Amino acid sequence: MVTNHQVLFDKVTPTGLPKPGETTKPGSTELDIDNVPLNGGILTRNIAVSLDPTMRNRMKGDIGYFSPPYVVGQPVTAIGIAEVVRSEVNGFSAGDIIYAWSVGIEEYTIHPASVAPTFRKFDPTLLKNGLTITTYLGAAGMAGMTAYMSIKEIIGDLKPGNKMFVSGAAGAVGQLVVQICHQAGVKVIASAGTDEKCAFVRSLGADETINYKTEDLPAKLKSFAADTGIHYYFDNVGGDQLEAYINNAARYGIIVACGYISGYNADKPEDVVYPKNLFNIVTKELKYQGFIVSSFIPKWIGKFMEEVPQMLADGKLKNKEDVTFGVYGAEDAFLRLFTGDNQGKVAVLIDTERAEKWNLKKQIEGAKVWK
Amino acid sequence: MVTNHQVLFDKVTPTGLPKPGETTKPGSTELDIDNVPLNGGILTRNIAVSLDPTMRNRMKGDIGYFSPPYVVGQPVTAIGIAEVVRSEVNGFSAGDIIYAWSVGIEEYTIHPASVAPTFRKFDPTLLKNGLTITTYLGAAGMAGMTAYMSIKEIIGDLKPGNKMFVSGAAGAVGQLVVQICHQAGVKVIASAGTDEKCAFVRSLGADETINYKTEDLPAKLKSFAADTGIHYYFDNVGGDQLEAYINNAARYGIIVACGYISGYNADKPEDVVYPKNLFNIVTKELKYQGFIVSSFIPKWIGKFMEEVPQMLADGKLKNKEDVTFGVYGAEDAFLRLFTGDNQGKVAVLIDTERAEKWNLKKQIEGAKVWK
Repeated sequence: MVTNHQVLFDKVTPTGLPKPGETTKPGSTELDIDNVPLNGGILTRNIAVSLDPTMRNRMKGDIGYFSPPYVVGQPVTAIGIAEVVRSEVNGFSAGDIIYAWSVGIEEYTIHPASVAPTFRKFDPTLLKNGLTITTYLGAAGMAGMTAYMSIKEIIGDLKPGNKMFVSGAAGAVGQLVVQICHQAGVKVIASAGTDEKCAFVRSLGADETINYKTEDLPAKLKSFAADTGIHYYFDNVGGDQLEAYINNAARYGIIVACGYISGYNADKPEDVVYPKNLFNIVTKELKYQGFIVSSFIPKWIGKFMEEVPQMLADGKLKNKEDVTFGVYGAEDAFLRLFTGDNQGKVAVLIDTERAEKWNLKKQIEGAKVWK
Repeated sequence: MVTNHQVLFDKVTPTGLPKPGETTKPGSTELDIDNVPLNGGILTRNIAVSLDPTMRNRMKGDIGYFSPPYVVGQPVTAIGIAEVVRSEVNGFSAGDIIYAWSVGIEEYTIHPASVAPTFRKFDPTLLKNGLTITTYLGAAGMAGMTAYMSIKEIIGDLKPGNKMFVSGAAGAVGQLVVQICHQAGVKVIASAGTDEKCAFVRSLGADETINYKTEDLPAKLKSFAADTGIHYYFDNVGGDQLEAYINNAARYGIIVACGYISGYNADKPEDVVYPKNLFNIVTKELKYQGFIVSSFIPKWIGKFMEEVPQMLADGKLKNKEDVTFGVYGAEDAFLRLFTGDNQGKVAVLIDTERAEKWNLKKQIEGAKVWK
């Protein structure tokens, strides 16, 4: 028997920030990993999970979100990497490392057979390039795929000399968008919530930054737009920043709509800010298009895996990670996504015992290990 | 000397309905058409103009609209067809019939040389197919091009069996969109402001209609969406109807953003309704794209002129026109666009003396002739 430590969903929280200890709470069960019935499914030992703002929407009950709401009393789930312990599904066997959309924030998860077709095998030799397992959940994982594939799919070829505004630019996706655009010769203005984050984003190649909490964002966008307008907007936040972009968009401007973080934790639905200038979508002939990476992985994964992990390993793409060690640390780590206290891509290493195997030995030294 | 009757712009009117006699007023000047100096430009005798909702935005002063505001004391201008009387521009000579973006609502206009490159010659033999000159300003002109080209450009191939919502469906553009979609095997639900207009739109092939003034539009859209959602939305109006579509959109739904009529005459900017559910642009991966026909005429005009006039002549495409006879009728006709009292595409035949030449002999009989 082992103790399976878990972060459980505990209370539907439609508004405000998620509350550790209330929205979610720590828990545990005893598990006989050798004999627990799998009912045709797969038992995994979980290695690491990615924490993403979009998970907040699954804590609101049934709001018609495209991912189902979390179930009270059950573990919160996330995109993660896990090792197969036992499998009753053909094609998977003990020792396989898999990517899955729905890894419990817990040490072990029993996956029903029905989800196995969505698993993707992770090639552990990829770690030989020096990248960590959490990088494969971030810059070389979903966040990287989101940045890379959404630009390919919605913008196509970036035109050197064009201008781009990136919001949430210090976040997991934003920091990669800044670099991809900068390296393509695009002029980048980027927003973030602290001066420190702005400095980080400038170090990645942003030409200008805006601390949206202390600076006049519309004025800075207007000045950056100058005579040409701004050709692209990578939108992680929606709300006021989206409105400001639309006012400063170039004709035929393109908005990659990747998130709407400004609205995720509103106290009341009426508090969510929506742009009041959509008429410009018509008059400037803008394209405003939503993107969810799962729709385009089959199309772009080959090209992505050829290019991006190597660029990260070579330092041609940089990424900053905010890794928490241990299951119970996930509650605080998730909250940091919304308070802005995170430093880059937020992930949790669940398998802290094998940190070295996952190339996180250096990072775990001296760090707090939860549980 | 001839008297040049004109509709003059008289007062910047930022909000509310345009007011005949106040926003615009009738006027006239004496013109020596044989000797008036052209300063290198072109004198035209104007045949007909198209009245379009978008002109309302040019009556608001300088609001940053893509077309310049009308000038107080000068004639209101519109898209029109005119005959060259005298030309000092190479390539144009007396008797040429031209399409122009900026024909004065007056009997004669002097065009500066700088606008001549935007003129397109009209082949008068096109009238031999029985179509009227005003049809070449509507279904076979800008309105038709807008319907045809925006679908080609933003949606691409319509998929039979998919569902489409068209707002403003009895209008110049909407009535053609309904027919194009219906003939492509798309299931169409369409909104209009009177039961009579709804019946007309059903006669064009709409499967269902909604009188948005008397019926519960969101409920009818929801029922039409059923399990699949609605795949396309052709948006002429914005506001509440746009919000209702977004709530009932299929994943990967496409919004052709062609106008925002619901906002054009608001008494206060705060009265304009904007959707409060843009988060769904992300989660449903919608594409919401603005369209202005002038951007795509060069790309699609050949295919359009090959197909559409003949379809109209053969009755394979139907169109309803609301033709006013005489310059001074333009004021009332323009107002009808917003009160909903128009019956189809609104145009003004300026050259009432030659109605027969423009295939409008039957229509002018018994009709009111202004001026």
